[in-house]
This record gives sequence, C-alpha cells and structure tokens, in this order.
Amino acid sequence: MANSIHIVVEPRKTDEAAAPASSLLTRVNAGYFTICLSLGAQAVLLNTLISDNDRATTKSPIVVADRVLGPWAVLMLWLSLCTLALISCLYLLRCCFHLRLVKAECSDRVAVNFLFVPWISWLLLLRAAPHRVLARLPHEVLLWALVAPIVALDIKLYGQWVTSEKRSLSAVANPTSHLPMVGNFVGAWAAAGVGWRETALCLFAVGLVHYVVVFITLYQRLTGFRAALRPVSFLFFGTPSAACLAWSSISGGFGVACKMLFFLSLFLLASLMCRPAYFKKSVKKFSVAWWAYSFPVSFVAVASTQYAEEVKGAAAGGLMLLLSSLSLLVFVAMLILTALNTDRLLRQNDPSLSFT
Amino acid sequence: MANSIHIVVEPRKTDEAAAPASSLLTRVNAGYFTICLSLGAQAVLLNTLISDNDRATTKSPIVVADRVLGPWAVLMLWLSLCTLALISCLYLLRCCFHLRLVKAECSDRVAVNFLFVPWISWLLLLRAAPHRVLARLPHEVLLWALVAPIVALDIKLYGQWVTSEKRSLSAVANPTSHLPMVGNFVGAWAAAGVGWRETALCLFAVGLVHYVVVFITLYQRLTGFRAALRPVSFLFFGTPSAACLAWSSISGGFGVACKMLFFLSLFLLASLMCRPAYFKKSVKKFSVAWWAYSFPVSFVAVASTQYAEEVKGAAAGGLMLLLSSLSLLVFVAMLILTALNTDRLLRQNDPSLSFT
Amino acid sequence: MANSIHIVVEPRKTDEAAAPASSLLTRVNAGYFTICLSLGAQAVLLNTLISDNDRATTKSPIVVADRVLGPWAVLMLWLSLCTLALISCLYLLRCCFHLRLVKAECSDRVAVNFLFVPWISWLLLLRAAPHRVLARLPHEVLLWALVAPIVALDIKLYGQWVTSEKRSLSAVANPTSHLPMVGNFVGAWAAAGVGWRETALCLFAVGLVHYVVVFITLYQRLTGFRAALRPVSFLFFGTPSAACLAWSSISGGFGVACKMLFFLSLFLLASLMCRPAYFKKSVKKFSVAWWAYSFPVSFVAVASTQYAEEVKGAAAGGLMLLLSSLSLLVFVAMLILTALNTDRLLRQNDPSLSFT
Repeated sequence: MANSIHIVVEPRKTDEAAAPASSLLTRVNAGYFTICLSLGAQAVLLNTLISDNDRATTKSPIVVADRVLGPWAVLMLWLSLCTLALISCLYLLRCCFHLRLVKAECSDRVAVNFLFVPWISWLLLLRAAPHRVLARLPHEVLLWALVAPIVALDIKLYGQWVTSEKRSLSAVANPTSHLPMVGNFVGAWAAAGVGWRETALCLFAVGLVHYVVVFITLYQRLTGFRAALRPVSFLFFGTPSAACLAWSSISGGFGVACKMLFFLSLFLLASLMCRPAYFKKSVKKFSVAWWAYSFPVSFVAVASTQYAEEVKGAAAGGLMLLLSSLSLLVFVAMLILTALNTDRLLRQNDPSLSFT
Repeated sequence: MANSIHIVVEPRKTDEAAAPASSLLTRVNAGYFTICLSLGAQAVLLNTLISDNDRATTKSPIVVADRVLGPWAVLMLWLSLCTLALISCLYLLRCCFHLRLVKAECSDRVAVNFLFVPWISWLLLLRAAPHRVLARLPHEVLLWALVAPIVALDIKLYGQWVTSEKRSLSAVANPTSHLPMVGNFVGAWAAAGVGWRETALCLFAVGLVHYVVVFITLYQRLTGFRAALRPVSFLFFGTPSAACLAWSSISGGFGVACKMLFFLSLFLLASLMCRPAYFKKSVKKFSVAWWAYSFPVSFVAVASTQYAEEVKGAAAGGLMLLLSSLSLLVFVAMLILTALNTDRLLRQNDPSLSFT
Repeated sequence: MANSIHIVVEPRKTDEAAAPASSLLTRVNAGYFTICLSLGAQAVLLNTLISDNDRATTKSPIVVADRVLGPWAVLMLWLSLCTLALISCLYLLRCCFHLRLVKAECSDRVAVNFLFVPWISWLLLLRAAPHRVLARLPHEVLLWALVAPIVALDIKLYGQWVTSEKRSLSAVANPTSHLPMVGNFVGAWAAAGVGWRETALCLFAVGLVHYVVVFITLYQRLTGFRAALRPVSFLFFGTPSAACLAWSSISGGFGVACKMLFFLSLFLLASLMCRPAYFKKSVKKFSVAWWAYSFPVSFVAVASTQYAEEVKGAAAGGLMLLLSSLSLLVFVAMLILTALNTDRLLRQNDPSLSFT
C-alpha cells in the first residue's frame, strides 16, 4: 500500500512543476465536464419533480411550487446546454492542439474515467429535454452516437483491468472508477427511455457486473488517491442511484431490486455524511473536483422522487423533499463558489486534475 | 500477510500480561452475549418446529414429539431471557465502571463485531416470544430500540471500512465480520414479521451488499486471526441461513432466492464438516468463543424447516430432522461444557476475547 | 505478486527437467480432456441448431442447412464419444500406474481445476445424445455418477480456499479456476434437463456464488500464470454462457437474468477479441491448452441460439449465425492443428500442463 501511494503522488508533483504557465486549453481537461454533469443532473431532477406533480396534480401541496420550478427547469436546461457546448468545444480544441495532453489523460488511472463524463452529460441533457424538442431531433442517431463511445471506452478500460498486469484493477481502482459504470447506467436509462430494451439490458448488465467488481475492490482497499479527489467519493452513493434509475426504466416499475439499490444509496449517503473529517482535507481549496459533490446528490434525489411515487406516505415524501432540497443547496453552493473562483478555475493550474 | 498476523498477535500478548487479576466485570465482554444468541436461536428453532407441526397437524408423525418440544421451548425461552438479562446487566455495569475496556472493544477489529450480538439476541428473543405475550408489549417501540443501534453500528463500522486507511476491510476482515450482517438480517426478519416491509428491505439490502463484500474478502484471504476464534468460522454457513430467513419473511414465501441461500449454507456446512483438522487447534481449551458453534447450526436448522415446508418430500424432511438434531446436540454439548467450565469462564481470564 | 510468480514458475522448471523420457501415460494429464470438452460442446451446439430448426420449421431459411448439420452432428457425437472413451481409459491407466502424477495434479493450483473436465465432458455428451438412446440408458444413475464427483471436488477445492492459508484463493486464482464453476453449471443444466429442479438449483447456487468470488478475484489481480495458459482466458466469456444455459434450463425460459449473463459473455468476448496482443505469447507453439479456445465459443454460440429463439429479429439471428460460424471455424482449426501436431501432443512433453 505504501508503494501504491508512492506511485500516485510522485508524478503529480513533477507535473505541477513542469506546467507553470499553461494556456486555457491545457487546463480544460475532461474533469471540467463534471460541471456539465451536475448541471444536467439538476435539470433532470427539476424535470422529474415537475412531471411528478403533473401526475399527482391537485393532491400534492407542492403544486404551487411548480410555478417556481418550471422557469427554473428551463433556465437549467439552457445553462446546461450552453456550458456543455462551450466545454465540448474547448475540449475538441484541446484534442486538436494538445493531443499529447489528451493521451496523457487516457493513460492516467484517474483521468481516464473522466473521459466518460462528456457522453454522460449529453445523455442527461437528452433525458432532460422536453418531448416536443426531442421529437424534432434524430433521437435514435443521437443516442447511438452517445452510447457507442461509452461501449468503446468500456471495452478499452475493463479489458485493460483483466489483461494488463500493470493496469490491473487492484492497482488503478479509485473512487473515479465509478464513472464508467455511471456511464453504463445512464446509457441504459436513456436507451430504455426510447424502448431499446435489449440495448438497455446489455448496458445495464455490463455496468452492474463491473460495478460489483469495483465496489468490492474499493471497499477492500481504498488507499493511494489524492485528498483533492475526495469529493468524488460521493459517487459511492451516486452510482447505486443511477443503477436504480436505469433498472426502474428497464423493468418498467420501481420494484424490489430498485428499492434495494435506493436503500444502498441512502445508507452510503448517511455513512459519508457522518464522516465530515474525511472531507476536511479536500475542502481547503476550491477546485473543479468539488463539482463531484453535486450530481451524486441529484441522482439520489431523482431516485427518491420515484421511490416516493411508488411507496406513497409521509416518510417517503419527506425524504424526497429533503434530498431535493439538499441537491439544490449543494448545487447553488457550487454555482456561487465557482462564480467566486472563476479566476482560479480558468487562469490558475488546478493541481487536482491537471496533466502536462 | 505476515504483517497482519503480527498486528493481531502482539497486542493480545501484552493484554494478557497486563490483566492478571481482573474482576468479573473486566472479563464479561460482548463475546459473552454469544451464549444468549445461541440460547435465543435454539428457542426460535423449537418455536418453528412447534408452529410447523401446528400447521401440518395430523399428517406429520413428529406430532407426538410436540409434547416434548412444548415444555422444552418454554424452558429455553425462560433460560434465554434470564441469561440475556443477567449478561446485559453485567455488561451495563462494565460500561459504567470499565468504560476504558468497552472503548478498547470498540476499537478492536474482532471485538467490535461482537457489539452487534446483544441486539441480535434481544431480537431473537422477541421473535421466539409467544404472540399473547408480545401483544401486551409495546412491540414497535421495542423493535425500534433494537434496530436503531444496529443501524448506528453499521454506519460506524461499514463507513470505517471505506474511509479509514488503517481500518480498511482487507486489514480487519475476519470471520466475526459476519456478525454485523447477521444483525442486519435478523433485524430485517423481525421487521418483516411485524409488517414493516420498507424497513426490512432496507436492512436486508444493506446487509446483503456488505455480506457479499465480506464473503468475497474472506474467501480471498482468510489469514491472521487467532486459532481460538476458529469456532466463529461456523458463521460462514450461519449467515446465508440468516439471510434466507430474512428474505423468506420479506418476500412472504420460500422462493428461488431463499433456496439458493439455503443451498449455499448447506454447501458451506458440508465444506467445513469435511475439515476437522481446521478446528483441531481451537478445541484444546474451552472458551466462550465455542458458543459460536451453536447458533449458526440453529439458523441452518430453522431454514431447513422452512425449506421442508416449501418443498415437501422425504429428503427435505430428513434434512430438517438431521439439522435440528445436530443443532440440539451441539447446543446440549455446549451447555454441559459450560457447566463443567463455569470456573474458567467466570474466574479465569479468557485469552480469546479479553481486553484490558 | 512477484512472489506468486516465483512460486509458480519454479516447480515447473524442475518438473520439466525431471521428466525427459516419459511414456504416453505420464503425458496424458487431465488437461487432455479439454479436447473431449470441445468435441462435446460442438456436438451440443449442432444438436441445438437442429432442434431449433425443428421448432421454427419452414420459417427459417437455414432449414436447408439441416441436411448438412444432421450428419455432421451424428459424426461429432461419435467422434466425441470415442475420444472421450479413449482418453478416459488412458487416464484410468495413468491413475493405476502413475498415481504419484495424479496426486501431483491434485495439489497443483492449475491442474486441479482440469480434474473437473472429464465429468463435464461426459455430462455434455449425455446432453448431446439423442432422446431415443437416452431412454434406453439408466439416465438417473449416470447423472448421479457424474454429478457426485463434481460436488466432491467442489467441497475439496472451495473448502481449501477458505480454510487453507497456503492455498487461499488469492494465491491460487487463475483463469482455469473457472472450470469448477463450469462443472457446476453444466451439472445444473443436465439436472434441470431431467427435472431434478432442487439438485439443479443447488448446483447452480454453489456455482454462481463461487463464480462471483473467482470473477472478482481474477478481475482484481490476474498475475502469475504461465503465458502458455492464456487460451484458458477464453473461459472468461465461456463461464457466464454456461451459467446462462443452466439458468435458462432451471427457470424454464430465457428471462432477464439469462439475458444479462449472455450480454456479459458477449461483452467479455468482445473485450478479449480486441486484445490480440494478449494472446500473442501463447500462440507460438501448439499445445493441448489451445483446445480451450474452442469450447467457450461453443457455449456462447449455444446461448446465442437460445437468445435468438427468445428475442427473434435480424440482429439476434445474425449474432447466432456469426457465433455458430465462429465456433465451427475455431473448432475445425483446432482439429487441423491437432492433426498436424499429433506427434508433439503424444510423443513430446507438453510443458504447459505436464507433471512429473
């Protein structure tokens, strides 16, 4: 274990030293898509809350809130689209002018997982988009274009774990390793949404198997990753919620398996909430990695709305309200923090996710 | 691995040396609750056998045995209640006067798991109690009071595995790590019994996920735990049986998943039975840890009665009889051994589970 | 890890040195049954294709191919039977005259897994045999005689993983560790075929649990096994297909769980296909281990026929055709290679699986 810490920490230091005066393109790595992911998750959450109210109409006392949520959801959608388009363009430029950096991301055990984030963000945006907009889009083509890269990356990454001795899972596992599975689950969710049941099941099956593998590996030995990446630990409870949403969409209902995944999420959320000390080290200096605090909470909140719909009752409704508020709170806090730290995000070098 | 053995063995030796003349309270650690657990499991088994006969009435030839089982079940219930009350009082006193020792238990990788045993024992007692007694008790309040500590301990323990580097699962896993999951499963069983389906499902989901994690970790590397603790290895087959009972109670029937868990129990039981050499080292000197031989067999026996009820047939009935007899045999043997070794249990220092 | 490689490589070298002039019997180890397994799997595949056409009769355009497949299937069955009888006899003689070698196989971490192969081969042959032949055989007695050794070996092997420190799973896991589970799954498949539902479920449950354990262990650390054994890595995708066939037979349909196992197979197949470099080292010199390339593909092909039957559609049908052709291609290639290298297989010492 001492050895694995050593491996991780050393190259990082030299990286920082070697890249003191880098341009914007050298700084905007795949990790920046986490911002888009959080925006997209928030848009999906607002969408779910509104359509939930649509169904439950007059019964719910939250109906009044719809007038507030409606415009907020539209705003989120546009904000999400613009940010995603902007960062996608920047990243494309980075691919053209700094291919070396992108290759470095591909071979880094942490950064490679963030390569799944752009596709997840676009999928979430597709999910959050209103039906009348989607009807005009070549929906199926778009879905293929977004799911195919996830499958290709899956084959590259998961295969590497099995066949490569240097990049074996026990050596590379870290909380960001949840991101590929989130990719599979969100892909399955989107595919099930348009009725591609077999594709959805395939994505879900591959994701679930590898989720179990990664979950157990992380439980057994969670060492040797930088304190700056600790926000990503929130994926511990975000991933089962994503799985829960995908399965509920595939099976066409919020059954026992969905509930179990949701309860697992809740337990892991409670477990991390009870450990503020664990996140202490990572909250000293704002970095783009902090955005990983936001979208896992949104995923749990979306799952809780589905749970509340299924179970009905004060406890489930309260839980939904609590988690939705928490999600909003974390999101707004991130927005404000990002606004206050734009300078650091865009001009200074982010040590937590930078590559030379 | 050599390292992990080292870590475990050393503090033990100094403990023993430092506590030569300890009082009764310093000796009665949480491990003593295993006795209550075995008594409770036996009471539940007898209860199940009787109520089974009730349902199958005249058909079964064992009906005659009911006259024997009835009083024996009542006796077990009282014995269980008295022992549990006695040890609970002793342990409460220990908490008051030797808080340092209890804290030492909390931070020991083996002893911390035994902290789940008191709650499991009380839950089993509640399960074994006749309905007319339960009707007079504030059943739901009691259940909350017993399940809440299990959840709290879960959050403390499982969270520690994920976030702490020193106490990561691969460093602390040992057969007693099954006890927290047994807590979850027995809690789920009890909750499902009173109709709290969501609570039961939540406890079961959390328990199952961590059971898979611990099971795989133990399968991969079962090293570095004291030979004196080998009786606890019986939990290998006791835990899936507990899961089986919980799931059968939640799903309201003994379905495919229950059967699979039951067969897993049987296989692991057969597997351990074929390895007498493995238990050789631990059977030299009687210790309170020996009581861990009893309750896992009782759990399998209870599961086998449910299996026999579901499947019906000579093989299933024979299996039920065999396992029930085995459970009774082990239990009576433990009773006799304890009676013969009361002096050692209460006056001498038990090296296998003592804390200074 | 360096340590585990060391352990494996050393005894091998001394083995080779010590057995320069060995007879045929010293060379025919349990690994040679892989040939029979591949023949059997091919026979089962042909059988499935034919009976599939029977059911789909006139609709399918492949009906014409039936006239080709029919005789080919009968030929395969006879070839399979003869080869299996021949190698079984040779191995029995080996047991009589070179018991020391057989014992060495039992204690080798790789060879011990091949001891499951004879029983799997016979079970497959039983499965591929036509109904009118089976009706004349004491089918149930045969099944018991074939399943019992698998269970006995399971208890020996899986128990060793848990209780032995030297032979713990993390030390002995290698791709051949999939073979015991294939044994369980094929056993469950056969048992479900004759209506022994409980036996099938028991074999399946035990197999599935240990499959999960082995799968995760192999994903975490696939090191320290000889390059010559890399063909056995094909079991990565062969095992879930075997599980899929067993479960489809037990549950009486190709449900969601079967589909998920099948998709897992497909993904792992694609994952390995994209890594030709991984198999480079192992394809320099033909050895009997190459036969492990054949039967996993056949298993996936059989699963794909069932999938095509369930889903219906061009994609599923095309997949079935593709996988069946691939299976046939690999099989014929192996036949030709074996014919060309008979001398090496029977006269020279095979370093990949030899024991002194």
